[in-house]
Amino acid sequence: MDDRRIGVFDSGFGGLTGLRELVRVLPHEDVVYFGDTGRVPYGGRSADTIARYTAEDIRFLRGFGVKAILVACGTASTVLGRLGSFDIPVLGVIEPAAEAALAATKNGRVGIIGTAASIRSGAYERALGGKCETFAAACPLFVPLVENGRFRRGDVVIETVAREYLEPMHDFGCDTLILGCTHYPLLGEIIADILPGVTLIDPGAEAADRLGRLLASEGLETSRDGDGSVEYYVSDDPEGFSRLASIFMGREVRENATKVEI
Amino acid sequence: MDDRRIGVFDSGFGGLTGLRELVRVLPHEDVVYFGDTGRVPYGGRSADTIARYTAEDIRFLRGFGVKAILVACGTASTVLGRLGSFDIPVLGVIEPAAEAALAATKNGRVGIIGTAASIRSGAYERALGGKCETFAAACPLFVPLVENGRFRRGDVVIETVAREYLEPMHDFGCDTLILGCTHYPLLGEIIADILPGVTLIDPGAEAADRLGRLLASEGLETSRDGDGSVEYYVSDDPEGFSRLASIFMGREVRENATKVEI
Repeated sequence: MDDRRIGVFDSGFGGLTGLRELVRVLPHEDVVYFGDTGRVPYGGRSADTIARYTAEDIRFLRGFGVKAILVACGTASTVLGRLGSFDIPVLGVIEPAAEAALAATKNGRVGIIGTAASIRSGAYERALGGKCETFAAACPLFVPLVENGRFRRGDVVIETVAREYLEPMHDFGCDTLILGCTHYPLLGEIIADILPGVTLIDPGAEAADRLGRLLASEGLETSRDGDGSVEYYVSDDPEGFSRLASIFMGREVRENATKVEI
Repeated sequence: MDDRRIGVFDSGFGGLTGLRELVRVLPHEDVVYFGDTGRVPYGGRSADTIARYTAEDIRFLRGFGVKAILVACGTASTVLGRLGSFDIPVLGVIEPAAEAALAATKNGRVGIIGTAASIRSGAYERALGGKCETFAAACPLFVPLVENGRFRRGDVVIETVAREYLEPMHDFGCDTLILGCTHYPLLGEIIADILPGVTLIDPGAEAADRLGRLLASEGLETSRDGDGSVEYYVSDDPEGFSRLASIFMGREVRENATKVEI
């Protein structure tokens, strides 16, 4: 048993879709969430810069004495290998997503979508280890469109952009698609309309599941029952946090966030 | 006469439209350009964070011993009043744009578009000083769309977004529109199609003109003739710099940029 908190971070708000899954899998755990809203988005930046920001995010969460960290950001997850090892589990979304995709695919064709940095990194292909055919597509406008509330059916803007990005995926004929960015689960309906019958893999959910198994196997679960708490930190003004957070969490978020300088 | 260089900065690439105008007005001057590509975009951040980043950008350029600084970023220009005074001219785009708009309007109705932060600041209205009626609209998706190359006629995505943002401007009946972000001059054709007959004010061009007059009046012009040089610095990997810079400069940029940590 270990009553220390779990740390979760993302470049901004997208990671809240991962937090939502973590709270579902581990409802009794207390969590510290950090969103690097002062430097969001990460997905268009270089690997060096993403690695520097990710190291700082991890250091910030370690300051709370957390027992494990969930990197609820597809882009940050791609640079974890460059940061060396840690004495607590620091779990990204890449390997859990790859494992789930390999379990799901029947025709051996897995598609990958993500930010420009994630796709350029080749991290998902490496995690899939040559066990299936892959096709990867960067979707750089998905994050700003989702953050501007454009993720609903009937919006010609997101539908046009999504069709452009996903058309080659259709031709590739994948039966499984990794949504390699924690913003993308909000586009689930739009993507399913364009790629009907394709199994969509939500990396945040897969990573939350794996973290749950890991805490159980290492005896690191909390001894408490009852609902765990979530404390939110951001690196820019928390104004409007509750409204945006509610969209990503899929439920009303009443807590406010505390601003920190990183 | 003063042969020191002029510093120009922006959150990223948008300021290159201002640099283009500066080179047109002051072809003999040597320039240092800084694009804060490691923290772009500024337009969705809080005034506190924008002020901190802007102060750091100015400090970085002052390290080159420049004789004047052009803040070629609408969003950064809105926080200059919070940074105190400097012993060299530090010129933003707000006042020059407001002055040009007042000179241009015939019906006394001036529209303002900009990033969320710029519009929230009310800086353009303050600079217009109640001398005309104003209507302001935030256009948060314009920057990511332009940076993803979606600024050309016939693109349903930018045309749909632009129509949504500008429809209220049409109803307001302005005859003059301030393009309050240095990315927006690239959308000139799209905007002119939606608001025919409206005079578009390019703040970067107006600020470059004013800087030219200021150097002349204070005897700060360079003694050299021949083409001035431009040295480029960015805060993220300069890969792809030449290609993107060429779009914003409207001519081939062959120089590469140097990466700095800020």
